[in-house]
Amino acid sequence: MKKTLLFGEPMALLLADTPGALECVEHFTRRMSGAEVNVAIGLTRLGFPVEYLTRLGDDPFGHYIEQALKDNEIGTNLLTYDPVYRTGIQLKEYVEDGHDPAAPYYRKGSAASHLSAKEIDALDLGKIELVHVTGIPPALSKEAREATYRLMERAREAQIPVTFDPNLRPALWENGETMRNVLNDLANYADVVLPGIGECEILAGTTDKEKAADFYHQKGVALVVIKDGKNGAYVSEKKENGEVVRDMIPGYPVKKVVDTVGAGDGFAVGVLSGLLKGLPVTECAKRGNAIGSIQVQHRGDNEGLPTEEILQSYMAGNIQK
Amino acid sequence: MKKTLLFGEPMALLLADTPGALECVEHFTRRMSGAEVNVAIGLTRLGFPVEYLTRLGDDPFGHYIEQALKDNEIGTNLLTYDPVYRTGIQLKEYVEDGHDPAAPYYRKGSAASHLSAKEIDALDLGKIELVHVTGIPPALSKEAREATYRLMERAREAQIPVTFDPNLRPALWENGETMRNVLNDLANYADVVLPGIGECEILAGTTDKEKAADFYHQKGVALVVIKDGKNGAYVSEKKENGEVVRDMIPGYPVKKVVDTVGAGDGFAVGVLSGLLKGLPVTECAKRGNAIGSIQVQHRGDNEGLPTEEILQSYMAGNIQK
Repeated sequence: MKKTLLFGEPMALLLADTPGALECVEHFTRRMSGAEVNVAIGLTRLGFPVEYLTRLGDDPFGHYIEQALKDNEIGTNLLTYDPVYRTGIQLKEYVEDGHDPAAPYYRKGSAASHLSAKEIDALDLGKIELVHVTGIPPALSKEAREATYRLMERAREAQIPVTFDPNLRPALWENGETMRNVLNDLANYADVVLPGIGECEILAGTTDKEKAADFYHQKGVALVVIKDGKNGAYVSEKKENGEVVRDMIPGYPVKKVVDTVGAGDGFAVGVLSGLLKGLPVTECAKRGNAIGSIQVQHRGDNEGLPTEEILQSYMAGNIQK
Repeated sequence: MKKTLLFGEPMALLLADTPGALECVEHFTRRMSGAEVNVAIGLTRLGFPVEYLTRLGDDPFGHYIEQALKDNEIGTNLLTYDPVYRTGIQLKEYVEDGHDPAAPYYRKGSAASHLSAKEIDALDLGKIELVHVTGIPPALSKEAREATYRLMERAREAQIPVTFDPNLRPALWENGETMRNVLNDLANYADVVLPGIGECEILAGTTDKEKAADFYHQKGVALVVIKDGKNGAYVSEKKENGEVVRDMIPGYPVKKVVDTVGAGDGFAVGVLSGLLKGLPVTECAKRGNAIGSIQVQHRGDNEGLPTEEILQSYMAGNIQK
């Protein structure tokens, strides 16, 4: 069975045990975070094998992450350890009322930020059927940015589909203009782009979904799926004959939003798994809506990600989450 | 009242809540660590005002440390925030049986490692009566190394006594030779040096206490106090007339060693506070032995540091710790 390739930085997540400003919190619980980690966990939980290309620090948090990836059945053949630089760390505020938690990084100069195009050149893509890229690695360092370009170029050369989630992280970029320019440039290499409606405003300069989708279609992106929170997702597919099919897929109602972190990654899991199953794009978006809405009802970044059985029950309305 | 100036990197300490390898620990309690922090806390607890020159990341752990320094009545007039780099982090294994705990750093490229000679040049040393330097800042980066040299040079120019604790941290240095060369060079600027007997072997090439003391006397160091764990401390003072007075001051018996971290810093607190009181050097070493032995009976890096009243009771044999 072919695999999905992910590329990014898993971090040790230090989750506050109590609410309030992080500087006042005394007790933390260690978990694992990172957008690509969430997508990787979501895909393996649905039965799709993944391989995770990353570099960790040779330190306790790095060793923990390797074990956590393995426990989640995520392939670690492309995991290496850096002898000098450390594993990235993220803190996260305790939330239970749905406000966006503070989640500052301690990842500047981390092991993963030293990944370079050299590691990409050495990759064997023979057993890869899908490459998923987010906008985070290109924000980490110039080396990691080059590596991101190289990976998307190589996937395109090998005719492997590329899905791209812009995943804006302004705090990691030197400035907003560079962020916009690089992410819009990288979109040229993608077959599928999954922006949020707020990201469309920053990247495509519009919150008009049709215009935003066309912005990406003009770059050669065949499928654009725009996340619009509780409203659902807008799907715009440009067929090979040039015809564009558009649809708005309504979201799942959620009684209580607990924690919004990981919702976008859950959405990506739904879309990617649908594409891997060969489902129609509207079905893919529906799966994305479903998993995103499950995620916001969980406090963890990735603990709520469902199995296929749970997902089907949820979509059939049999269970609340 | 004049102050003691300290220069270094306070870190957020993540103390494991349970024993075992750090990579398997899920819950952590946040404290503050750093050799200079321990010395600063010890001195203020004994009633000696200190000013702490450092730079923190503008992040939750940095803000916590500023508050913790203030709570310990440590002067923060020379504390600055870095807009880009982060506060250093240290993990620490849970120990209760006296073995040296694993205590890895996440401080590479931290805010404090970007302190430079520029900050030292801007210092007003008018109200400083003692400068205490450890061998840690010169290990953090080339900039911080230059800053350490500049601080010791400026103190010497201003005829302010300098105490120096080599505090070997091989993991922070590029190699052992550089560590030895730099620390031996910095000792030239010190009036008092406080090496451990193991450090004497690495730095002075001998575990013979008289020879090790002479190694430092030849550099112009007037007072050498060599820590020899439970055996106590060896004092060697070179008077202005060239006469050298040597003595071995026995240590305090300890029934159960809980955690060795912070013992050397506690020792420094005893010696420095004795010097600030104008006590004879043998009395200073005795205070050092006492506080060091109190520290090893506490699991925290600095929680055991005594007030003058507790110290006097302990030295009089009235209390066990």
